Amino acid sequence: MTDPINIAILGASGYTGADLVRLLLCHPLVAIKALSANSHAGKSMAEVYPHFRGYVLPELQKVEEISWDGIEVVFCALPHATTQQIVKDLPERLKIIDLSADFRLRDPATYATWYGHEHYAPELQPDAVYGLTEHYREAIKAARLVACPGCYPTATLLALLPLVQAGLIETDDLIIDAKSGVSGAGRGLKDSLLYCEVAEGMHPYAVAGHRHAPEIEQEIGAASGTEPIVNFTPHLVPMNRGELVTIYAKTTSTAEALRVALLARYRHEVFVRVLGSGEVPTTRHVRGSNFCDVNVFADRIPGRVIIIAAIDNLVKGSSGQAIQNMNLMFGLDETLALHQLPLFP
Amino acid sequence: MTDPINIAILGASGYTGADLVRLLLCHPLVAIKALSANSHAGKSMAEVYPHFRGYVLPELQKVEEISWDGIEVVFCALPHATTQQIVKDLPERLKIIDLSADFRLRDPATYATWYGHEHYAPELQPDAVYGLTEHYREAIKAARLVACPGCYPTATLLALLPLVQAGLIETDDLIIDAKSGVSGAGRGLKDSLLYCEVAEGMHPYAVAGHRHAPEIEQEIGAASGTEPIVNFTPHLVPMNRGELVTIYAKTTSTAEALRVALLARYRHEVFVRVLGSGEVPTTRHVRGSNFCDVNVFADRIPGRVIIIAAIDNLVKGSSGQAIQNMNLMFGLDETLALHQLPLFP
Amino acid sequence: MTDPINIAILGASGYTGADLVRLLLCHPLVAIKALSANSHAGKSMAEVYPHFRGYVLPELQKVEEISWDGIEVVFCALPHATTQQIVKDLPERLKIIDLSADFRLRDPATYATWYGHEHYAPELQPDAVYGLTEHYREAIKAARLVACPGCYPTATLLALLPLVQAGLIETDDLIIDAKSGVSGAGRGLKDSLLYCEVAEGMHPYAVAGHRHAPEIEQEIGAASGTEPIVNFTPHLVPMNRGELVTIYAKTTSTAEALRVALLARYRHEVFVRVLGSGEVPTTRHVRGSNFCDVNVFADRIPGRVIIIAAIDNLVKGSSGQAIQNMNLMFGLDETLALHQLPLFP
Amino acid sequence: MTDPINIAILGASGYTGADLVRLLLCHPLVAIKALSANSHAGKSMAEVYPHFRGYVLPELQKVEEISWDGIEVVFCALPHATTQQIVKDLPERLKIIDLSADFRLRDPATYATWYGHEHYAPELQPDAVYGLTEHYREAIKAARLVACPGCYPTATLLALLPLVQAGLIETDDLIIDAKSGVSGAGRGLKDSLLYCEVAEGMHPYAVAGHRHAPEIEQEIGAASGTEPIVNFTPHLVPMNRGELVTIYAKTTSTAEALRVALLARYRHEVFVRVLGSGEVPTTRHVRGSNFCDVNVFADRIPGRVIIIAAIDNLVKGSSGQAIQNMNLMFGLDETLALHQLPLFP
Repeated sequence: MTDPINIAILGASGYTGADLVRLLLCHPLVAIKALSANSHAGKSMAEVYPHFRGYVLPELQKVEEISWDGIEVVFCALPHATTQQIVKDLPERLKIIDLSADFRLRDPATYATWYGHEHYAPELQPDAVYGLTEHYREAIKAARLVACPGCYPTATLLALLPLVQAGLIETDDLIIDAKSGVSGAGRGLKDSLLYCEVAEGMHPYAVAGHRHAPEIEQEIGAASGTEPIVNFTPHLVPMNRGELVTIYAKTTSTAEALRVALLARYRHEVFVRVLGSGEVPTTRHVRGSNFCDVNVFADRIPGRVIIIAAIDNLVKGSSGQAIQNMNLMFGLDETLALHQLPLFP
Repeated sequence: MTDPINIAILGASGYTGADLVRLLLCHPLVAIKALSANSHAGKSMAEVYPHFRGYVLPELQKVEEISWDGIEVVFCALPHATTQQIVKDLPERLKIIDLSADFRLRDPATYATWYGHEHYAPELQPDAVYGLTEHYREAIKAARLVACPGCYPTATLLALLPLVQAGLIETDDLIIDAKSGVSGAGRGLKDSLLYCEVAEGMHPYAVAGHRHAPEIEQEIGAASGTEPIVNFTPHLVPMNRGELVTIYAKTTSTAEALRVALLARYRHEVFVRVLGSGEVPTTRHVRGSNFCDVNVFADRIPGRVIIIAAIDNLVKGSSGQAIQNMNLMFGLDETLALHQLPLFP
Repeated sequence: MTDPINIAILGASGYTGADLVRLLLCHPLVAIKALSANSHAGKSMAEVYPHFRGYVLPELQKVEEISWDGIEVVFCALPHATTQQIVKDLPERLKIIDLSADFRLRDPATYATWYGHEHYAPELQPDAVYGLTEHYREAIKAARLVACPGCYPTATLLALLPLVQAGLIETDDLIIDAKSGVSGAGRGLKDSLLYCEVAEGMHPYAVAGHRHAPEIEQEIGAASGTEPIVNFTPHLVPMNRGELVTIYAKTTSTAEALRVALLARYRHEVFVRVLGSGEVPTTRHVRGSNFCDVNVFADRIPGRVIIIAAIDNLVKGSSGQAIQNMNLMFGLDETLALHQLPLFP
Repeated sequence: MTDPINIAILGASGYTGADLVRLLLCHPLVAIKALSANSHAGKSMAEVYPHFRGYVLPELQKVEEISWDGIEVVFCALPHATTQQIVKDLPERLKIIDLSADFRLRDPATYATWYGHEHYAPELQPDAVYGLTEHYREAIKAARLVACPGCYPTATLLALLPLVQAGLIETDDLIIDAKSGVSGAGRGLKDSLLYCEVAEGMHPYAVAGHRHAPEIEQEIGAASGTEPIVNFTPHLVPMNRGELVTIYAKTTSTAEALRVALLARYRHEVFVRVLGSGEVPTTRHVRGSNFCDVNVFADRIPGRVIIIAAIDNLVKGSSGQAIQNMNLMFGLDETLALHQLPLFP
């Protein structure tokens, strides 16, 4: 057996960090060597997340205390903007898999507009590869720095990119109505994330102002050679995990032709399941897994179709896709640590 | 004090019937004289719905056993198609408030297309008034038969009709992404309504084929003089009550102008709350009440707006609106039995 | 019509305060004159709780800014210990209904043991009447200061007191396994109250150390002339509202005899529903209402019975009972503002 | 690599059957050769459970259509009583792992009392080994027929057996207050399992009459040489998975001594986690995994302790434990297919 790949996870005390740990503990070729969580430094992971009781894991420490000797790859699950500041001081030999939004937007001006400040590490941005695995596989294999997509863009782009590339849908009037479970908002202490504020209710948020919109536009634009402006309207749903996007698009083709195009594109992809005609993607059937389920439906409005995709926001939408990318970057079987089936019910 | 209005409720064992009972027990001028539930005939209401323990209510009986003497108004909360067959044999002096879909569609051909059979009481259809209270108030006052709108059309039309009537939005590309709690699907024994099939997940259903679409089209068409085809895509959300519609519409105006138009239209309506600029409608803040909260947001796509409305599907979307109509039909204060505030959390 | 009773609510921004407002807005003889919420002073109630949109309510202000002119009764829904400090400076003519734990424990030493500090207003303690309405009705009528019971003690004592008083159960081995919805823990920003930490899971908390234990012991002791030590083990359940206690007690009688004794005791009580033989209390059938449902079951262990009670923790367990007490203190019909039926589903 | 072990699963369309499939698809040494589901015969597993889309599985068929050639072990996840009738006609060389209650009770009279009919295969009962892995490991290794414990008995007995065997707790006054997620009740179409009847509420059921009581008594009796009668009171909790038992027991020892005794007993067990002093077992931290978390707490009632255990009812409480037993029966590493960590949130 080969030596394991030594890894570090920065920001291990968020839900994304915890799901990285959950999945990587089952990775046969990975050793978790360092875990950072500045506000919990000195604690064990099991103190912060009791579901890890009984597993051998390094103690949580501050980022600046990590010894990078022997570590080959670092997963950054840090708050936005923080990664930029930390990554630029890391040893150059380290591969970096970033789960934040810090390196997703290739245009610094767009970044500044949406995030409210100039980028802190613009010199690294050109090296960053957008980590939508099924669409940037070759670039990811060669990358030092992979910027994993946001959860909403992952579901949206897996559904749309093949159709845009084939010219099967128009890019000028895309309406993306998105619904997410609560873990997508993280573990921060906010009124709006309290159980009683979420359970038994639902609502839209960040209407026409969510930061995942420019990310979607960047990729749709790159695929089509246009500069689209999309509607992106997320909603909070009373569930822990799961994300569904319902996309309304213009086409001159048929829903079935689009479905077949997706099927052809993803025939050999393990983690994208193009459903049978009429079958409806649901979040509960991908829960806890790295799958993206997708399908296309005829709209009653002539010239329109409805495209629907479902993922687990913490897995395919975040930690799972990050691990899939790590597997690629190290020349491993892409599915290692990701075999787990959906947990239903 | 005047004599109470004697009423009967047909189909009292469904969630809609039960919510009629819940609200009407607090109506100061109503006496519940008969309750039908064919499959539960002979039981008390509290046996079927234990939350009614301690309340004095007539025993459940079969429809055909009801003595109509002294009854002035009947609420029909029966399965679709059943009302048509029962209503035509009722004494003519009875006022009828139908909560099913049986008399909502004015065009018999549209009815046959969407419901799969010819209408059984087409002779009554012309007398039916569409019971969207805030928009058919005068006709409802004079009606013998009121066809209460579906829950989705209620939220949708309250948000759209004033804008359509004022020519502020276009009717040819309306996209209505709707989300509902589970009680909207009724109390039938279906796999898909089991707790474990719904909790911790969400999914669209009846994509491009839901029967509330023609109802919305009928009213938008009547208000605009067009024959629109709308997109209507409902989703099931893991919550008991609540319905949210997120509507994407074309306009040549601004979101704020549309909001102000709604504000002007509903200024004197008790049950429609047009929110302040930027405030987001949520289902939890109308739960258990007869309110409809509505607002309009700018879209990033030029020439589009996002219109959002929230109701409790069993109250404003069904039983509450039915009672509001009854109050009108009998010349009462429209808010009687509907004063209850939202139950949050 | 008489002049309304002018009231103030201190701590209106907690869930308990909000439920007082919800219910009192429907009280025909009450006018809400002042609302305090120190951390939200200057805001409207609807900014803090959007379900109140459209209702006319005084602006939130700091306690010290309230003008007491004309106010006759104050509801204190403040954090523990705060009431003691505020109440002693209030005008003596004011009636006080306290929803905190500050005046529930008659013995100052017990208070100090469980709350970790000496009582700040011990001189007021002797005047406080324990506000378990059905059991202290006459004293409440005459009281200036009513200390409303905790939610768990309310359900527990309504079930146990008549049995203890009649000598039908023993007090030396009472095991009270309690389950509560999340609103019982308040609206504070704590990790443990986040949606993702609560949904799809359950757990006990404060095992053998919850502050409602001494309150239960005080009342059981007073009723029996003993000094019982009870087991009280609360659990957090993923639901907004509702509280269920499952009590295991020793008896020399039978479950049915105990049930009949409760039935006899509560025959004329509107808000306590002793269920029929074998019927199971559930929280969903009291949700949003002031009911307490209770029943007794045979245990398979000889000499034991199982006593079960269910309430809505925010209504009968808090704000509803407080209003019931206010009605008593002002000689009103005890049920005013409390007619609302359970909201199911 | 060795040949895989060929298996059949009877009753694959229930939640237990589906969880067997979920876990066994990740078993490196197992091949699923046959799946039965009489009411769904002819369908694919993915039609019944769409989360299995994309996995290669045999078509569902009727039990009587299964060809047993080459099959070495059969998992029976059938309704109670059915297993007895099917098992007696199976080839003798087949190993049988039964997840129903059919062979759990060693005394035929007790079976008849609790299940309402004489046992249909009493001749097989003596060969059945009770499949509580950590306590019957050697017998399981040698067994042909393993009767896997009920979910409640699994959690209860893992917590109690070591203490009973060591004489550390008394067996004559055990009170077991149990709480379960909804999947424990199966996928049958019953009113009481509908989303709207479960969500936002909780209640006890089968009070003093649940069939898991005699199973617990049998094992406690066997371990102690007594004939105990226990209190066992289950409650339904609005969550998909998870089971918690809160046990009130008499002891002459201390809670810490009991905790240490459990720690000593389970020191080398992978799947039983005895928590640190004061740490509370919760269902969310074992969700989806084969862990049982357990701890002991002092009671305020002198001479009593509180023992708490948490499992996932479908994994350690059913399918996971069954697979653990299969691993034992075939001389494999006991943890194969059970490495999956808890899914939180």
